[in-house]
Amino acid sequence: MASFAFEITHMDGSARAGLFRTPHGVIPTPVFAPVGTQATVKTIPPRDLYEINAPLILANTYHLHLRPGSELIRDLGGLHRVMAWQRPILTDSGGFQVFSLAGINKIDDDGVTFSSHIDGSRHRLTPERSMAIQENLGADIIMAFDECPIPTDRAIVERAVMRTSRWAERCREAHPDDDRQALFGIVQGGIFPDLRAQSAEHLQRLGFPGYAIGGLAVGEPQAEMLRTIAATEPFMPADKPRYLMGVGTPDDMLESIRRGVDMFDCVMPTRAGRHGTAYTRFGRLNLRNAKFSTDRRPLDEASDCPASRDYSRAYLHHLVRADEMLGDMLLTWNNLAYYCGLMAGARAAIAAGRYDDFVAETKEGWARGL
Amino acid sequence: MASFAFEITHMDGSARAGLFRTPHGVIPTPVFAPVGTQATVKTIPPRDLYEINAPLILANTYHLHLRPGSELIRDLGGLHRVMAWQRPILTDSGGFQVFSLAGINKIDDDGVTFSSHIDGSRHRLTPERSMAIQENLGADIIMAFDECPIPTDRAIVERAVMRTSRWAERCREAHPDDDRQALFGIVQGGIFPDLRAQSAEHLQRLGFPGYAIGGLAVGEPQAEMLRTIAATEPFMPADKPRYLMGVGTPDDMLESIRRGVDMFDCVMPTRAGRHGTAYTRFGRLNLRNAKFSTDRRPLDEASDCPASRDYSRAYLHHLVRADEMLGDMLLTWNNLAYYCGLMAGARAAIAAGRYDDFVAETKEGWARGL
Repeated sequence: MASFAFEITHMDGSARAGLFRTPHGVIPTPVFAPVGTQATVKTIPPRDLYEINAPLILANTYHLHLRPGSELIRDLGGLHRVMAWQRPILTDSGGFQVFSLAGINKIDDDGVTFSSHIDGSRHRLTPERSMAIQENLGADIIMAFDECPIPTDRAIVERAVMRTSRWAERCREAHPDDDRQALFGIVQGGIFPDLRAQSAEHLQRLGFPGYAIGGLAVGEPQAEMLRTIAATEPFMPADKPRYLMGVGTPDDMLESIRRGVDMFDCVMPTRAGRHGTAYTRFGRLNLRNAKFSTDRRPLDEASDCPASRDYSRAYLHHLVRADEMLGDMLLTWNNLAYYCGLMAGARAAIAAGRYDDFVAETKEGWARGL
Repeated sequence: MASFAFEITHMDGSARAGLFRTPHGVIPTPVFAPVGTQATVKTIPPRDLYEINAPLILANTYHLHLRPGSELIRDLGGLHRVMAWQRPILTDSGGFQVFSLAGINKIDDDGVTFSSHIDGSRHRLTPERSMAIQENLGADIIMAFDECPIPTDRAIVERAVMRTSRWAERCREAHPDDDRQALFGIVQGGIFPDLRAQSAEHLQRLGFPGYAIGGLAVGEPQAEMLRTIAATEPFMPADKPRYLMGVGTPDDMLESIRRGVDMFDCVMPTRAGRHGTAYTRFGRLNLRNAKFSTDRRPLDEASDCPASRDYSRAYLHHLVRADEMLGDMLLTWNNLAYYCGLMAGARAAIAAGRYDDFVAETKEGWARGL
């Protein structure tokens, strides 16, 4: 029996509910992966993630390569052991961070030379190096090294698609089997349907156990993102998981699921939690707002998450205003519970053949507010 | 049956093991109370405190009076409800913070006028006002309003003792019964045994369900502190709990228990946790130290606390160096587990009549190190 297997259990229109089996357990899809950049989902220990049924987390290759180093993590037993997280992990390729965080010194067909955002030290990433680092880290799902261009400049995107395709071949060669770690290819192509199709078809010939859509949600309007997803979806294998990288808002996710996407990751719920914002079925709440200072209701009394259920909005307001870490922690926990719960709701609705109704009801809740 | 009752179950020399019954449960003594200044033990949610058997926490009257205000906390159902903490709580009187944090505008026999350290706003605290605020907060144990002078200037200490005595009378009058909240008197007197005796005897005539030693651990050498405790102890009622405020290091606590103290609070374990320091049975460890960067052992594999047991020192080092909040959280949790476990160990040793051996063994562990 293969270590990885993806089974679609239900479809409702283009929306899919599935089960993705990995060496560290089965991931029900659609799934949202909380982001644990530096080998920790900021402010949230593993137990609290188990409690809200987070099936998968993401860690960043770029950050962990720079600090503490992937060899050390390998020597300590790998990411699962180091983080004391027993469920599946996904690592990105480092590509996105190299292009967005680091100082680029040189980019050529072989790879990228860049300067660390921490101490300016010089490093080089290539497809082979990204594979080696991700093998050291030991995540269940690893990503091909890609170039992430500005998505609207066709000439730049064309070159990035070609480069990403060649890099994907080299990743596939460097990591030829998916026994222990499943290597996902990343479709690039900006907002250009023909380039997306070209990228997806090339990747499909290489054969990956999963496919990602990269280079979206980098500032373009939501409509453009959704149009691109819809145009790309027909060229992605129907029997493999589809991962939309770095997305997004709850609305982005619901609309992307409707267009056939299975997996997401985003810093939004964790980052927002550290800035006083709660995601709820009543929409986004800014807990810094004075109107919450005397509000004795919890964020959501119907939630199973202790952070959402056991503390008044007045107390959360106090914690945020007083700069208490517990405020960051509780809001982050609430937000991840909301995101993971939203995915569970989407999954159940797809299984029941009522996904459109679920989306409409959910959006009504946001619009109605408190 | 009275809401509060203190029973000494064992003595070993002057060291006492007891049970202090309160409306929110029984506190086994000796006990260490984690400090939750702004209605949160920094970085630690209630569940994690239950897990390490913290029987009692402290919250600060001064801070909560300024923000969010005690009337609001009363209207939200009191501190236990607001914090979602179901075990006993102790609030201090605000005196210590007024004298150490705020800008003092005027101090007279009636009370203190001071400026908020948050926004400079002007406030006045009197014994009656401190009682009213603490009644609003709703802790199980509340403290008399006292003046905390520099402990080594005899003239200043003499005046502070007289003032503290009169203020204690007014607190006792303002809070005449201990049905719902037990009011503790605070013995002042600096490092002067005769003033300590005078203060303690006066308080005893007023009749309190517990007595604190205030004004120590403010910079004097440990030997002077211990000498003062030993000189004060004979003047404190044997059948009431004795609370040494703001103390201290693990060593301070063990030596104070030996001299008849039952209760402690201190920011040390929480503050140290946010600065990369772990308290363990091997002594204090600075997790920023590079020697931990490859250390795969947990802080203490024999601990029941997940923070002490489930993560390598190398991972904690990484979290601290990467400024990840999880580092603060795990070290704080470990430190509180160590403090609470030390008290449980002391209690068991007193019950077994081997307290001196316990102290010697514990200190040997610290001295031996890793």
